Amino acid sequence: MTRRPVFTNDYSVTAHPAVLAEITSLNTRTFAGYGMDELCSQAESWILELCGTPSGCVRFIVGGTQVNDIAIDSFLRPWQSVLCATTGHIATHEAGAIENSGHSIQLLASHDGLLDPSEVEDFILQWRDGGMREHLAEPGLVCISQPTELGTLYSLERLEALSEVCHAHGLVLYIDGARMGYGLGATTNDVTLKDIARLSDAFTIGGTKCGALGAEALVLPRHEECEHLRPLMKIHGGLLAKGWLLGAQFLALLRRGDYFTVTREATLRAQRIRRAFEEAGFEMLVDSPTNQIFPIVPLDVWEDLSSRFELLEWERLSPDRVCARVVVSWSTTKEDEAAILEWIAKVSK
Amino acid sequence: MTRRPVFTNDYSVTAHPAVLAEITSLNTRTFAGYGMDELCSQAESWILELCGTPSGCVRFIVGGTQVNDIAIDSFLRPWQSVLCATTGHIATHEAGAIENSGHSIQLLASHDGLLDPSEVEDFILQWRDGGMREHLAEPGLVCISQPTELGTLYSLERLEALSEVCHAHGLVLYIDGARMGYGLGATTNDVTLKDIARLSDAFTIGGTKCGALGAEALVLPRHEECEHLRPLMKIHGGLLAKGWLLGAQFLALLRRGDYFTVTREATLRAQRIRRAFEEAGFEMLVDSPTNQIFPIVPLDVWEDLSSRFELLEWERLSPDRVCARVVVSWSTTKEDEAAILEWIAKVSK
Amino acid sequence: MTRRPVFTNDYSVTAHPAVLAEITSLNTRTFAGYGMDELCSQAESWILELCGTPSGCVRFIVGGTQVNDIAIDSFLRPWQSVLCATTGHIATHEAGAIENSGHSIQLLASHDGLLDPSEVEDFILQWRDGGMREHLAEPGLVCISQPTELGTLYSLERLEALSEVCHAHGLVLYIDGARMGYGLGATTNDVTLKDIARLSDAFTIGGTKCGALGAEALVLPRHEECEHLRPLMKIHGGLLAKGWLLGAQFLALLRRGDYFTVTREATLRAQRIRRAFEEAGFEMLVDSPTNQIFPIVPLDVWEDLSSRFELLEWERLSPDRVCARVVVSWSTTKEDEAAILEWIAKVSK
Amino acid sequence: MTRRPVFTNDYSVTAHPAVLAEITSLNTRTFAGYGMDELCSQAESWILELCGTPSGCVRFIVGGTQVNDIAIDSFLRPWQSVLCATTGHIATHEAGAIENSGHSIQLLASHDGLLDPSEVEDFILQWRDGGMREHLAEPGLVCISQPTELGTLYSLERLEALSEVCHAHGLVLYIDGARMGYGLGATTNDVTLKDIARLSDAFTIGGTKCGALGAEALVLPRHEECEHLRPLMKIHGGLLAKGWLLGAQFLALLRRGDYFTVTREATLRAQRIRRAFEEAGFEMLVDSPTNQIFPIVPLDVWEDLSSRFELLEWERLSPDRVCARVVVSWSTTKEDEAAILEWIAKVSK
Repeated sequence: MTRRPVFTNDYSVTAHPAVLAEITSLNTRTFAGYGMDELCSQAESWILELCGTPSGCVRFIVGGTQVNDIAIDSFLRPWQSVLCATTGHIATHEAGAIENSGHSIQLLASHDGLLDPSEVEDFILQWRDGGMREHLAEPGLVCISQPTELGTLYSLERLEALSEVCHAHGLVLYIDGARMGYGLGATTNDVTLKDIARLSDAFTIGGTKCGALGAEALVLPRHEECEHLRPLMKIHGGLLAKGWLLGAQFLALLRRGDYFTVTREATLRAQRIRRAFEEAGFEMLVDSPTNQIFPIVPLDVWEDLSSRFELLEWERLSPDRVCARVVVSWSTTKEDEAAILEWIAKVSK
Repeated sequence: MTRRPVFTNDYSVTAHPAVLAEITSLNTRTFAGYGMDELCSQAESWILELCGTPSGCVRFIVGGTQVNDIAIDSFLRPWQSVLCATTGHIATHEAGAIENSGHSIQLLASHDGLLDPSEVEDFILQWRDGGMREHLAEPGLVCISQPTELGTLYSLERLEALSEVCHAHGLVLYIDGARMGYGLGATTNDVTLKDIARLSDAFTIGGTKCGALGAEALVLPRHEECEHLRPLMKIHGGLLAKGWLLGAQFLALLRRGDYFTVTREATLRAQRIRRAFEEAGFEMLVDSPTNQIFPIVPLDVWEDLSSRFELLEWERLSPDRVCARVVVSWSTTKEDEAAILEWIAKVSK
Repeated sequence: MTRRPVFTNDYSVTAHPAVLAEITSLNTRTFAGYGMDELCSQAESWILELCGTPSGCVRFIVGGTQVNDIAIDSFLRPWQSVLCATTGHIATHEAGAIENSGHSIQLLASHDGLLDPSEVEDFILQWRDGGMREHLAEPGLVCISQPTELGTLYSLERLEALSEVCHAHGLVLYIDGARMGYGLGATTNDVTLKDIARLSDAFTIGGTKCGALGAEALVLPRHEECEHLRPLMKIHGGLLAKGWLLGAQFLALLRRGDYFTVTREATLRAQRIRRAFEEAGFEMLVDSPTNQIFPIVPLDVWEDLSSRFELLEWERLSPDRVCARVVVSWSTTKEDEAAILEWIAKVSK
Repeated sequence: MTRRPVFTNDYSVTAHPAVLAEITSLNTRTFAGYGMDELCSQAESWILELCGTPSGCVRFIVGGTQVNDIAIDSFLRPWQSVLCATTGHIATHEAGAIENSGHSIQLLASHDGLLDPSEVEDFILQWRDGGMREHLAEPGLVCISQPTELGTLYSLERLEALSEVCHAHGLVLYIDGARMGYGLGATTNDVTLKDIARLSDAFTIGGTKCGALGAEALVLPRHEECEHLRPLMKIHGGLLAKGWLLGAQFLALLRRGDYFTVTREATLRAQRIRRAFEEAGFEMLVDSPTNQIFPIVPLDVWEDLSSRFELLEWERLSPDRVCARVVVSWSTTKEDEAAILEWIAKVSK
């Protein structure tokens, strides 16, 4: 039986060979525990240099929900809430992790996964001036994803505006970058890591979906003193005895720039597949320039598609129209791409 | 200067004279602390008799947000969430108290403040069968208000249906009865305390808004063993040293049935005022049969109304249309009613 | 049947007559909700004046466990812990309330209920310099009681030293003053409210045990901006709709200084009873100069004592030696005192 | 420069070669996410078979603090507390993680790291019958470590007694087995995995300290329905996208029994080193039969020891006596052992 090509998600293959080679190469050495080793330290330096913030700090955490929870918990007081889009990962797929840490989430409209800075400001002003402050959580932090859960990207202009709104009103801007690599590699992207470091108060550079075994880098660009992060990670179960394994993964992905090249390649592949869908006459749910695309197809086409490829039904738009999610990842092969392009070509005839 | 008649809320006057007399009468006696006294015990018996559930238990708690938080925390495990309407008090005006206790809230559509039982079931089924359970909080409890925050009431039919949905899927049904008296006294109400005790797993009978100094009765109709409630109340700051003061307030309000008569009178007053508004040609935001009514008036009428009476602008429907909230309470006087009826009569000319 | 004189605790009688009169007198008036009324504002001013800190702020909360929980939660971050004596109320009799709000408690030796400032410093230094910080909660706040749970008092010298240790290392000093009045009235006390306000970061002036129905004043002497306290109180269930009732109680107790005179009288009574015990040859567990005394008596004497008076066995020191707790309160009468003195005189013969 | 032999801990080397080979071998395959893959399923079966509980369930979690936190949070309600020894890891080195999840910890005396079952029962009875239940957290779960943090072991007799006490009073018995392998391999050990599964309600089999990259197996021997564990793991940040990596590590360690042989070898090495210390005239802090030993040496000997080997000062017993901790791990080599034995031989002359 032949394996069906997999477009389900970006975390179904173990890791980039460079990562496995790196981990294997460590095996005769001993390290200090809990991330206080030379590999984490080296990876921190490289990341801070990429971000143009040499005086910041980086902590490595094994999973995405965990890093969001730790980052948010490091900033918010009990009377403060998180603002995020209705599509935000923390609001939809973290099983209440943020609330379990004591913080309420206030949902704002999603515009293809993006927040509108002026709507964020309106919400803050309504809280500030609406005369009910003692009954309301104080907006304390805005959480966005770059790219978003719908594969869309904040433009530099929108990000500048959002950052300005947050900081004008004393809110923290936190960016979940679980798929950061796929965004940086998009041809229409105009936001660099340096922009992100300049405009936000904390953000992540996701490894798990971009070729690592499991590692996210939490970057605090302007916080020289990060001493409280280790005990906070500890109480969230996120301080690993063998912390060097996380640093090592980033070293492997950054040493020759593989992090950026494999994700850019995936994004380019996704966009070629998208163009093929569009040329075949299928609409997209959103205009997503990264590694996730959302073609809308008739039910019979969906049934054929999903019998030949592994992928997710994103939404049933009507009884006979399905929005599919096609995720291209660092582990998608030339052959996988060719197979789906060939299928699209046949369908479009 | 004359005081403007107050229609702002139902908690702006200290307490019904019977309550003050009761508290004052206790002053030469000593009591056991923490609600383990004969007054609480007596009030518990009276309430359970009214509810037709002699084997249940009642705990007295000083405030409404606190009692909601304690009730919900007594039922939910960390991986479970509360379902409530977008208008629910726990979602809108408790500053994140439920989330701070670790529980996420999932919002369902409000139909004039009410949940639709079939929409509740759809939500539960989507969680159960949607294939993403490990990323989602488990629906654990449905929280409704009777009357709702919009003054509307669950009919017996709707409440039966909702109870059936909850219990068919293993969810708890909890009813916030902060304004319970005003609902029981509505002419169109067909839900009795006995129905509520039969159909829910826990509910409150609110005192604070119905003539008490500050006291809510948390009723667990079918839970003979309530021993864990006291330490749970303790950790939520809700176990008062002088707990007898809470039992005493309910004794005062229930002894001659004042709880029911003063709230019924308020509801009747509110409905007379509502009819006057309607006869004067004003629409209502919702068809609310209890002590809160929501007339919609032009901006200039609102300006006159709010200069003569104390009351809240509920919502600015458009630049020149205001929805007002008129709350009639146990402490509203005949003179207050006459004043607003007179004003309406003038406006309608 | 005659009631036995009660020396069980200081919260078994409803309230000082002045408090009841004050509450009753409010009954024709309307107030703003949630503590934003003129009575709370007046009581805040009077208290700040007594404390010599006109620019501080005061919030009124109904119970002692609740106010401790709110105060501690307002200061601590998730990675920080509370330090307190093994005898501290938050560690022994709050059912885990502080931990339920997410904060660990680290216990230090009790010296008759008191902390030793140099032991506090040693603990902090051990954390700071011990090389295990990532595995340990950061000491964030020291919680003491004045008077302590054993009726003892911090001297000014000890309090100055403790304050210095806390502030030298960036910790908050919080003082639980549930029985503050009884301490201020002790003849050997040399710590004034002004000292407490000068040396701590937050403290309470307890009403519930000193003649109120139920009210504690949380004082923040140097925090002009206390805006976050109301939503924090809200999420802890401590923001009462009829908040004016709490302010009114303090107005009643402070207007003519009753707060200070009734508690001083109780402390003097307790000390007369203590001298009688001592002259009768009984030892005390601790040298407590306030309203709680802890005489040690043979078992047969305890049996006679506890059959004639209501009071608590504090500790069974050996099979035939009992340490009793005698609590004299604002509601203890001349007759109660005479009865126990007469009993002691008989026993000592 | 020559590396000093490392006896600091059991997690300073990356992983057993079999683990790395296993992970590397997976690289061309795709897996379902979040532990719902065939590797986790296979590892679960093997573990349940070893435990003699085929109908139980196993979940794999990356770190030890995290698995303790999740296990405890899965059992306890907010009003319940954990009992553990003063030396317990959850009480001493988890930075308040358990408390941050809302649970208080109540400390009982450590007898060389072990709890005394009758002292546990006394504590429970004191809570049950002491007349203060409303002010106290309910003892809900007993947490022990096997081996303990001092390298000691529960005998089967003691474990039977503790299990009986817990279950007679409705408490959960949870066993932290972070170093389980080292205990099973001790020559004096009489407790098997089957005993542990029979006598406890949940326990862990630690991988991280026994040759894994980072993986702990949480075993629930008698809970067929474990569905809530995944969302609970999710909210604690413990549900990894690439969950198969955890299952794979256990497959690698269990396939040929390496888990048991490498830890037994380490324990035998530790005991040979211990005998050498004893024959050289040095006392041990505790009689620990596993891979951790605690020799007591004069200060000058400690200085020489710690200059030649990497290891921890456990405790300064007096200005000139040091208790050292010597940890032998799966990664300790024959050469490391020979070096320390040689050094001891020289010192003893």
